[in-house]
Amino acid sequence: MPYMPITESMFLIAETREQPMHVGGLQLFVPREGQTATELAEEMFTTFQECLDVQPLFRKRPASPVTILGNVAWSFDEEIDFEYHVRRAVLPTPGRVRELLRYVSLQHGALLDRFRPMWEFHVVEGLADGRVALYTKVHHSLVDGVSALKLLQRTLTTDPDDRSGTAPWNPNLSRRRSHGSSAGLGSRVRGALDVGGQVIGMAPAAAKVAMRGLTDPDFVGPGNGAPRTILDVAIGSARRFAAQQWEIDRLRAVTTELQITLNDVVVAMCAGALRSYLIDHDALPDKPLIASVPVSMHTDSDKVGNSVTAIMVNLATDQPDPERRLATIVASTRRSKEVVRGLKPLQALALGAANFAPLAFATVPGFVQYTPPQFNIIISNVPGPSEHLYWNGARLDGVYPVSIPMEGLALNITVTSTADHVNFGLIGARAQLPSLQRLLTHLDTALEEMEKVAGIQR
Amino acid sequence: MPYMPITESMFLIAETREQPMHVGGLQLFVPREGQTATELAEEMFTTFQECLDVQPLFRKRPASPVTILGNVAWSFDEEIDFEYHVRRAVLPTPGRVRELLRYVSLQHGALLDRFRPMWEFHVVEGLADGRVALYTKVHHSLVDGVSALKLLQRTLTTDPDDRSGTAPWNPNLSRRRSHGSSAGLGSRVRGALDVGGQVIGMAPAAAKVAMRGLTDPDFVGPGNGAPRTILDVAIGSARRFAAQQWEIDRLRAVTTELQITLNDVVVAMCAGALRSYLIDHDALPDKPLIASVPVSMHTDSDKVGNSVTAIMVNLATDQPDPERRLATIVASTRRSKEVVRGLKPLQALALGAANFAPLAFATVPGFVQYTPPQFNIIISNVPGPSEHLYWNGARLDGVYPVSIPMEGLALNITVTSTADHVNFGLIGARAQLPSLQRLLTHLDTALEEMEKVAGIQR
Repeated sequence: MPYMPITESMFLIAETREQPMHVGGLQLFVPREGQTATELAEEMFTTFQECLDVQPLFRKRPASPVTILGNVAWSFDEEIDFEYHVRRAVLPTPGRVRELLRYVSLQHGALLDRFRPMWEFHVVEGLADGRVALYTKVHHSLVDGVSALKLLQRTLTTDPDDRSGTAPWNPNLSRRRSHGSSAGLGSRVRGALDVGGQVIGMAPAAAKVAMRGLTDPDFVGPGNGAPRTILDVAIGSARRFAAQQWEIDRLRAVTTELQITLNDVVVAMCAGALRSYLIDHDALPDKPLIASVPVSMHTDSDKVGNSVTAIMVNLATDQPDPERRLATIVASTRRSKEVVRGLKPLQALALGAANFAPLAFATVPGFVQYTPPQFNIIISNVPGPSEHLYWNGARLDGVYPVSIPMEGLALNITVTSTADHVNFGLIGARAQLPSLQRLLTHLDTALEEMEKVAGIQR
Repeated sequence: MPYMPITESMFLIAETREQPMHVGGLQLFVPREGQTATELAEEMFTTFQECLDVQPLFRKRPASPVTILGNVAWSFDEEIDFEYHVRRAVLPTPGRVRELLRYVSLQHGALLDRFRPMWEFHVVEGLADGRVALYTKVHHSLVDGVSALKLLQRTLTTDPDDRSGTAPWNPNLSRRRSHGSSAGLGSRVRGALDVGGQVIGMAPAAAKVAMRGLTDPDFVGPGNGAPRTILDVAIGSARRFAAQQWEIDRLRAVTTELQITLNDVVVAMCAGALRSYLIDHDALPDKPLIASVPVSMHTDSDKVGNSVTAIMVNLATDQPDPERRLATIVASTRRSKEVVRGLKPLQALALGAANFAPLAFATVPGFVQYTPPQFNIIISNVPGPSEHLYWNGARLDGVYPVSIPMEGLALNITVTSTADHVNFGLIGARAQLPSLQRLLTHLDTALEEMEKVAGIQR
């Protein structure tokens, strides 16, 4: 019975019914030529259910789930109740993306059972556009958000003719890779799990970074102190998920014209959208919002074992002029990067690096109400695969991360890229953040404003 | 901000992630002539979503949901997020009853959000047999299981041509009734809510009875002490729901031949099935299982404001002979009724009257492991409507209660009758009770054995 490091157990200890600590992902697939959506859903569901050999990560669960201090050791189940863990769902008519987002919203608010391995896979059909969705839910004590996405991508290939698609828990996926041979399998995507044993490699890197954030005063960055906003509130368990993708070329054009990074554009889109959203609700504070933004410390961002840390970024939401707002964001980001660049690189690749600081205290009653927030929102931008990927010939058309709102952090925005798109996943506390989906329109407007600043004609 | 009586707040206080304290119901409807299942589902979903006037019971929620001692007052929401509370789902192919039961199993394990009124209605289509299901989930602090079923029945009518079907939260349902006029509406079914104000009338009657159980030593009945079984264990949050109906005439024939009650037949079916199930798992104890069975103290069981209490019944699971087993069950039931008959009738109509005694202690770590069980299972038999009922012309074809497994009570069997059927709803802790659905076959076998004892040819 292996003991858990605090970097894993803390996600069990900090979890409450209002703050489930699982990370999610929503992948969309286009059926291959001649295949219907129902056939693809059936094929995926059956393939998953029939993959009875399960690697240890997907078999481990808390050894003493009901005692308060008992979440300190893992045990491993021999048998998996696939009928429970692998689910199939159909969207009601009219089967728009809206119905899919609603499905994810409702599922993401429910706690995982601690008496079994803490993951679920949902194969969802019924989209009128003919795509099939895969919604996944994995507890943060097993895996962080980035690793979860990479885990899913391990089952994908760049070869559209490859038909060896399998389940993410197939132990052969790791074995194959560690033998260094991808011949005959297409070039499987290399993921976060290359680091030797799967279990040890999956310790949430975000947590390690965040632990440092608690003990190292320089780490927190400029620390101007964030204003109190409608994002910094106690939250209920119900969620609302909103997602949309933009062509990556649109964002790239802006980076080229203005000599800024893709991350700058993403953060500035969020800043503009948040400003408009807060104005909608007559809740824009005088002081600018502060975002915690995980950033890579490597230039080669494809390398496994990235060093990731979190910086504080001034979102300049007090600034009505898009050009000035962008300038403040870019300058703040650069300054923050300088501050943390002096730190020893951390063996981490995680998303939401700064999560832990508030997490540790948020469950203390009154903490959220009486403590000024260090930052108002976490905005993560996670580089994804740059090539087209396929599962049994079905093309991956979009990947949306579904992260964790927390006490005092009612909204999380996580962004990931695929071959042609930048995919935004917004997850918020449903009762506390009304009309969350309007942020999508505001994101689009913010991008248009930046294009105007860059002098791009559309 | 009205304060909660302990009979309501205790269900909030005792609730854990492994022991959600909501009661459910599954109703099945046959679309009216010329109507498809999708049309009925659409009609029901739309009617519910458009009923914006909401009676107070469906607007109240805990005033301070996050503080441990804060669940002592109610507040009332002005607006209801119908998109959250009223859900529409489609079953995956092949759309058997099995897929429906799976849907209910998975939904019933998830906690309700405490930051909003604690109820959900799910309109479910996709059954291959063309029926439409309505799964409801209401927190036990709002309403007990029987009242929840009656609440649903208030929207039904005996008139198949009536088209005034509405949502259960429509305040006109109570108003209509309190004016005493059912003319022109068909004869609406009178329910549990006749007792004046809806809010006060909904205090869980089970709780009141159970409080008495804690303080009155005679109340617990013979108290032989139950054996320890696989039913008396700590449970996870995952559930498995199994349900089946039998023709009421089959059970009635047995009662007539053997001069016993319908309740005796129901309990004996459960006893025989449990014996077989425990033998399957090589887990039959030497001593007989003890069931806690809520019984009516009135002969006129249709009367509103029934006096209900709980008796302990020896299930004679150690007895291989069906005739002797039945004799022991009938004798034990009669003796237990004598004991409680001396008690002052309680103003209650509830199901699961004896629930509270273990509930109060089950969340104390170690209690379940080290305390001998008073009883092994709660078997509730709730009289339902004796006439055919309709919602906008769609005939109610079955009603299955979905009750609450608890720490130390991993299985609950609740039975209700409709015009032609006796409907069994079995809800169990999924990981702790494997192959729960096999109990359905065993229930059928147990009925056949009793028919043989009664000399009934089939």
